[in-house]
Amino acid sequence: MLYIGESINATIKSVKQAIIDKDEEFILNLAKAQVETGSDLLDANAGTGLDQEAEDLVWLVELLQKNMDITLCLDSSDSKALEAAMKVHKGTPMINSISGEQQKLEAMLPVVSSSPCKVIVLCMGNNGIPADPEERFAIGRSVVGELEKAGLKKEDIYLDPIVMSVATDSGAGVVTLKTLELIKKELPEVKTILPVSNVGFGLPGRVWFNLVFAAFAVERGLDALLCDTRNGKMMTSILAAEALQGRDNFCLSYLKAYKKGLLDVKK
Amino acid sequence: MLYIGESINATIKSVKQAIIDKDEEFILNLAKAQVETGSDLLDANAGTGLDQEAEDLVWLVELLQKNMDITLCLDSSDSKALEAAMKVHKGTPMINSISGEQQKLEAMLPVVSSSPCKVIVLCMGNNGIPADPEERFAIGRSVVGELEKAGLKKEDIYLDPIVMSVATDSGAGVVTLKTLELIKKELPEVKTILPVSNVGFGLPGRVWFNLVFAAFAVERGLDALLCDTRNGKMMTSILAAEALQGRDNFCLSYLKAYKKGLLDVKK
Repeated sequence: MLYIGESINATIKSVKQAIIDKDEEFILNLAKAQVETGSDLLDANAGTGLDQEAEDLVWLVELLQKNMDITLCLDSSDSKALEAAMKVHKGTPMINSISGEQQKLEAMLPVVSSSPCKVIVLCMGNNGIPADPEERFAIGRSVVGELEKAGLKKEDIYLDPIVMSVATDSGAGVVTLKTLELIKKELPEVKTILPVSNVGFGLPGRVWFNLVFAAFAVERGLDALLCDTRNGKMMTSILAAEALQGRDNFCLSYLKAYKKGLLDVKK
Repeated sequence: MLYIGESINATIKSVKQAIIDKDEEFILNLAKAQVETGSDLLDANAGTGLDQEAEDLVWLVELLQKNMDITLCLDSSDSKALEAAMKVHKGTPMINSISGEQQKLEAMLPVVSSSPCKVIVLCMGNNGIPADPEERFAIGRSVVGELEKAGLKKEDIYLDPIVMSVATDSGAGVVTLKTLELIKKELPEVKTILPVSNVGFGLPGRVWFNLVFAAFAVERGLDALLCDTRNGKMMTSILAAEALQGRDNFCLSYLKAYKKGLLDVKK
């Protein structure tokens, strides 16, 4: 499993303020806490709404890479911000995200093909997010085709089957899991990713929905998870799920994480 | 989901002592705590090793049914104890358990066919518990055949695909889940049951393995769970799993359990 720490995100109030204030210590502490708890990459979202997203994202990238040996997941819907950030990013960044919305896709394709990168693709199109797994998958497959034409390799593409809250749509979990199954079956070389935190939105005990849903996604072979690795319960659930699926010999990965203090196994 | 409270069990030291002491208050409090937290039936195991299991089990049944409106899951490997307990039990008890071990099965068949009951069947035979799901399932199917010949109906039979710890056998979770899938596919009228608490035996954070494994079993349509319903985390995980599988419209069952205080959603 590839873990992408989700927490440097301007939609979180304290992070937004830190970006506006250019508070280096706050951002670096947040970054370190995520890496120490198992994040392989860090998401970086600088969308404060202040019309300087490109400058702010470049600031984040330079700050983080000057102080840490880390690869970033550049998180923006603004093609200009992504382009600027990709220019200063050392190594191969991940781009979060593009989708099948035609106009946006056309703006993004030149950006993601301008230099080596990995790309997250949301399985949604011009008419939004289909409720049918086949349709949702079809959008993902079509964007994969466009990306391949633009020179990207399948293994650098991460399809996000998209999950919405089961509080408002009881079928929300099932359609996501079925889309994930279709991707794994039909496009085995393409990677898959999920930001699980949406699935329990609006429900008391939201985190439990995230944990159980992450386990269901692990079961289906999910490749990458966008989550808060500082939440030891999430890591516990995922590593237990891997072991229960027979993918962790003698639970050695689980026990290693436990010894490192990364798990939260409080009763 | 049918919840069977597991806690009145003489293998637990304090319960053993209460049975030896005929401590009515202890047993009744334990029973009430389980019913209040969602147990539909209560397991009753009186195997203290004192060679008076039949008397002790009869005592448990009479004590519980005199004071509460509850159906019991009579838990013993001693056919004489079961026979005696069935005679005093009001309503239709569940029997825990029989298996495909020929000698034991022959002793049990007359007992379980002597009066109406539901029966838990362990999928193990003369040579122990097969590592192969097809073999494990074949034993279950064969015992179902024997029970039908003895007059029981398929819907009164609960097959237990048996789970052992993943700490010692990395494939332990997978073989159980595959056996469960086979039962649901090949014998859809037969019910299924799991005592999930074994799967994390010997591991730190054992409860997390139980929780995630229960979610995987729920996903496959498990009918009944033998567990400690006083553990609000277990109930949270199972109800979240049901919702994520699209089986809880607008999460109403989850929210109802939450309002009743049955869940433990602490972060």
